[in-house]
Amino acid sequence: MEDFSFQNKTAIRFGKNRIDEELHDAVAQFGHNVLLTYGGGSIKKSGLYGRVMAALSDLNVVELSGIAPNPKVTSIRAGQKLAKEHVIDVILSVGGGSVLDAAKVIASAKFYEGDPWNLIGVAGTKRRHQLAQLPVVDILTLAATGSEMNNGSVISNAQLNMKLDSFGPQTPAVSFLDPQLTYSVSKWQTAAGSFDIFSHLAEQYFDRATANDVTSGIIEGMMRAIIKWAPIAVQEPDNYDARANLMWGATMALNDFASLGNANDWTVHPIEHELSAYYDITHGVGLGILTPRWMKRVLSTETQARFARYGREVWHLTGDHDQLVAQAAIQATYDWIKSLEIPMTLPGVHINDDTNFVRMAQNAVRVGRLDHNDGYVNLTVDDVVAIFGASMTTDGFE
Amino acid sequence: MEDFSFQNKTAIRFGKNRIDEELHDAVAQFGHNVLLTYGGGSIKKSGLYGRVMAALSDLNVVELSGIAPNPKVTSIRAGQKLAKEHVIDVILSVGGGSVLDAAKVIASAKFYEGDPWNLIGVAGTKRRHQLAQLPVVDILTLAATGSEMNNGSVISNAQLNMKLDSFGPQTPAVSFLDPQLTYSVSKWQTAAGSFDIFSHLAEQYFDRATANDVTSGIIEGMMRAIIKWAPIAVQEPDNYDARANLMWGATMALNDFASLGNANDWTVHPIEHELSAYYDITHGVGLGILTPRWMKRVLSTETQARFARYGREVWHLTGDHDQLVAQAAIQATYDWIKSLEIPMTLPGVHINDDTNFVRMAQNAVRVGRLDHNDGYVNLTVDDVVAIFGASMTTDGFE
Repeated sequence: MEDFSFQNKTAIRFGKNRIDEELHDAVAQFGHNVLLTYGGGSIKKSGLYGRVMAALSDLNVVELSGIAPNPKVTSIRAGQKLAKEHVIDVILSVGGGSVLDAAKVIASAKFYEGDPWNLIGVAGTKRRHQLAQLPVVDILTLAATGSEMNNGSVISNAQLNMKLDSFGPQTPAVSFLDPQLTYSVSKWQTAAGSFDIFSHLAEQYFDRATANDVTSGIIEGMMRAIIKWAPIAVQEPDNYDARANLMWGATMALNDFASLGNANDWTVHPIEHELSAYYDITHGVGLGILTPRWMKRVLSTETQARFARYGREVWHLTGDHDQLVAQAAIQATYDWIKSLEIPMTLPGVHINDDTNFVRMAQNAVRVGRLDHNDGYVNLTVDDVVAIFGASMTTDGFE
Repeated sequence: MEDFSFQNKTAIRFGKNRIDEELHDAVAQFGHNVLLTYGGGSIKKSGLYGRVMAALSDLNVVELSGIAPNPKVTSIRAGQKLAKEHVIDVILSVGGGSVLDAAKVIASAKFYEGDPWNLIGVAGTKRRHQLAQLPVVDILTLAATGSEMNNGSVISNAQLNMKLDSFGPQTPAVSFLDPQLTYSVSKWQTAAGSFDIFSHLAEQYFDRATANDVTSGIIEGMMRAIIKWAPIAVQEPDNYDARANLMWGATMALNDFASLGNANDWTVHPIEHELSAYYDITHGVGLGILTPRWMKRVLSTETQARFARYGREVWHLTGDHDQLVAQAAIQATYDWIKSLEIPMTLPGVHINDDTNFVRMAQNAVRVGRLDHNDGYVNLTVDDVVAIFGASMTTDGFE
């Protein structure tokens, strides 16, 4: 178990219809000038936009819409300009993790004079921690990224084929989590979001730290909850219990509690970021395709005890033979992802040839330091190319 | 799953020897005048006192020692006087949960003009939330109560035979958790503390809320960690991994994360508080005696599915018959508590007759509103008397 420091000040308001009564004060405590950020307009169709504007009717609200999935630096630039021009006091993000990720970087960009792409990546994170950051309030409409209770953002630059992390000094100030607001999320996005949650848990579960059983147990319990409720949410979009477990599970999966005491260097996410950067595919779907192949690649006599524990505690597998339980656990993982109706190969998301595999693998290894970081098992460029290659077919799984 | 609001600002510094480098600034950020609270002087024997005084050598440190287990209101009164007289800016608690519980109430009492016993109990909590509260920094030396990351305190009044809760507006500002500082905890206190942790988890696990699987899974995972490591800590006091899992488990068991989405009304603690109030027994030991009897008392066709889940997920029991798995889970709980060398009857802690059973049961039902609260199963005075009665012998368990 590793030493750690931890503090997370985000205020959570979880439950039904709380924004109508509580949003105004949650925002107005920080000032009068509000930058409202959102995506493609589904919040207008659903009526959420109207509820928000009604709650904030006595405040000055400036809008930034059109923030896309895999949010682009172009949105950050637009937000930076608005935040400066309108002397914004607080940002209200209404939408999923992409909108919120953008809002968090805009919150720093307000206090930065240069191009906000300089706030992305390792050097950008260092820069952000020197800056002030506007408070961010959010209303979440998609259970997936956990952005609502952490300080991370993932921002893409389409010109550069890059998708990189950025961490600010602050987590959101207040996050409103109403599971009902996710009833309208499509099957596809529900499945992708659910696997994003699961992947966050898996990245933290397969960790180099030993004897960290409190954290391991917490993750196992959350995995079981996601495994149980994700297929139900996919089939019954307005099942409150399913949506509530996914929503709170998403938050808890990435608010640091599931990683405390870990070495905590990730593997599959940096690989997936290359897929999203090159092909703009849905992040959770990319993770769903890659994860079982990554598991098979790193299963060895060294790792099989951990995978066997995963099989027993998460999948209720029995048997004394670690290697067999481990293999069955990986197969169970694959079968569950497939049951969410996620396409299980790269051709299923229209990546039909290996043209970019080596380049993407090189980037992933370099950016994620996969060959020498503290990840569970270090990976070479060849390993990553092999994981991409294994993702071209269902061989070995079906 | 119930709606909830949540925010916890405590900064955690977990790991080895961090106080020597970090304690000074963690305290001095709040001011120059420090009230140092501690217990019976074991921190002088261990050298911890010297390390603390070295770290704070440039600050004004006023001392309040002698804070006892089941901390008494007399200590609060003494602390209130010192805090006012010396214009204290920050309290540093060095010790276990009792010392810290007292520190948290003194932190409010500084701003209160009357007798601090008025800050205890339901009315006292209401009063405390009107008051300011000094920041509290703590160095924990016992893994048990979770006081290091919550806003609760339990204070006893020996004159009145009362032991009551009090909740302040703030959790500790900074908590230093060094598992090495618990190496010197006796077998008895290690066992009692471990069961206190387990009991906190059980009180939150057996809850009226349904379909709260994220929280349920988190608790199950933590229970397994405590079950695994507590006996090791009892047998090998300087096993770092054991001490680390107990210490972080204690914090996570009662920093609200294990109850979010629950109805969260407790049952066994109010009953145990009567035992401690009347007989001043060790809290965790009282819980260890009462809990298996409480489980048997509330096991029914309505509750057996939950107890069976508990048996399968926590104790790895198999079998399809819920009632049998539930019974086996209760027996496993008993056997594990006994393995910690906790005396398993009331006579084992020198309570040899039933003189006070009815009076204690009446108090527990009244103070804990056990017959009409949102607890897992409501209990009458007769139920509580029967639980006390069943605790007189090992009948039914051995």
